[in-house]
Amino acid sequence: MAFNFPVRVYYEDTDAGGVVYHGNYLNFYERARTEFLRSLGFEQDVLLESDTAFVVRRCEIDYLIAAKFNDYLTVTVAVKQLKRASIAFHQQIIDQNGNLISEATVIVVCVNLSKMKPIAIPENITKELLRAS
Amino acid sequence: MAFNFPVRVYYEDTDAGGVVYHGNYLNFYERARTEFLRSLGFEQDVLLESDTAFVVRRCEIDYLIAAKFNDYLTVTVAVKQLKRASIAFHQQIIDQNGNLISEATVIVVCVNLSKMKPIAIPENITKELLRAS
Amino acid sequence: MAFNFPVRVYYEDTDAGGVVYHGNYLNFYERARTEFLRSLGFEQDVLLESDTAFVVRRCEIDYLIAAKFNDYLTVTVAVKQLKRASIAFHQQIIDQNGNLISEATVIVVCVNLSKMKPIAIPENITKELLRAS
Amino acid sequence: MAFNFPVRVYYEDTDAGGVVYHGNYLNFYERARTEFLRSLGFEQDVLLESDTAFVVRRCEIDYLIAAKFNDYLTVTVAVKQLKRASIAFHQQIIDQNGNLISEATVIVVCVNLSKMKPIAIPENITKELLRAS
Repeated sequence: MAFNFPVRVYYEDTDAGGVVYHGNYLNFYERARTEFLRSLGFEQDVLLESDTAFVVRRCEIDYLIAAKFNDYLTVTVAVKQLKRASIAFHQQIIDQNGNLISEATVIVVCVNLSKMKPIAIPENITKELLRAS
Repeated sequence: MAFNFPVRVYYEDTDAGGVVYHGNYLNFYERARTEFLRSLGFEQDVLLESDTAFVVRRCEIDYLIAAKFNDYLTVTVAVKQLKRASIAFHQQIIDQNGNLISEATVIVVCVNLSKMKPIAIPENITKELLRAS
Repeated sequence: MAFNFPVRVYYEDTDAGGVVYHGNYLNFYERARTEFLRSLGFEQDVLLESDTAFVVRRCEIDYLIAAKFNDYLTVTVAVKQLKRASIAFHQQIIDQNGNLISEATVIVVCVNLSKMKPIAIPENITKELLRAS
Repeated sequence: MAFNFPVRVYYEDTDAGGVVYHGNYLNFYERARTEFLRSLGFEQDVLLESDTAFVVRRCEIDYLIAAKFNDYLTVTVAVKQLKRASIAFHQQIIDQNGNLISEATVIVVCVNLSKMKPIAIPENITKELLRAS
């Protein structure tokens, strides 16, 4: 059961090939992860105040069909694997016609931001992530 | 006598209209201002360490001709007016054929970043800006 | 009576100064104009198919307060002046606490995209713009 | 023997975490691939005129150390595997102190852009890619 977040494609997201620029899919995936955490009750600006952030450690992205200007996409978020200091997400982007546009595995690590050192994911977040997966 | 900085247009800079996305000209202008300051001996990461930054207060941008994918542009920087805490820059973007692509006036303010309060521009920077203008 | 569109600030929108990167406000303003046109019944991908686009000719932007990561902004759109081939918009960005973050005048021109020549704004659009202003 | 391309980190590339936004590494990798093709004599705007483009099919990116504002990076490009219609690149990003910042495998497919269908890579490009690898 994945979390869903809608994303509209604007001019800023596209490139001269007439489609969404490949790097900008990472924005869409990141927005959906942020909204997923928010839906569990966690605001990342509050996390930042306690010097804690989730940073991306690895991405694998498949680009299957090119998303186009003005498309209305759905971005999904599912927890694939939860470790002490990291989360592996499985994410998909689906367009308004139900086509699978892109698929990704994104590994994020919980860090102490000023030291850029991995730390254990706060317990209340782990608890909610387990409940949601 | 303006400072010049070259900028190549990559896919990331363009949009589905086939030309450079209007918001991205601000990136080009900002890169040139950063390189102008560097040419005077000032590195903005060093400034940041002393909690000092130049933030943009106002932009006026005219878009005259659309820059295209793969264009090789020249961005100019000239100091138009220097005040105690702010600098007004006049900037232009010219393409490889000598066409004037865009023109801008950008006002930046020197701030204490954590308080977001205007402060006097450091004296050594003012001195070099006067020498360069 | 202005049109309103909400924008959430994500990591992608911010910079190392800890606030929204000044160039990205143009994205927020553009999204709101796109949604304003959509609210009047006009989809810009359909316009593109008939080789018609609105391109930005001039922007004046004032940056009053820095928007921050995770802010939930409201972007307004009002038609300031309507000419045969161009529209002057007045736009504002307001944060979740009612603070005026930024203000802009944006002039867009209706063009034949492949020729990049100004053309009259399609009559049905002019009609709706007049009704909305 | 890899191709090298320098990239300066500007404000536009960073985020509120104080480091380069993870999605923007894809810009750096793409710029280097574009310059690699240019170094072999191929301009992508010329390719576009014949309705041919290289589109990204898959990316695997490891983020090892966070690149910071004002860093001066070197992006490498090496051909890992060359097929009839696709190229697998191995790329690295190294900072001014010789640290490996990020590593990626990027698979691009040669397509007829208006049909978005894979086509054989033009023979003159294949020839130069073989010579360069």
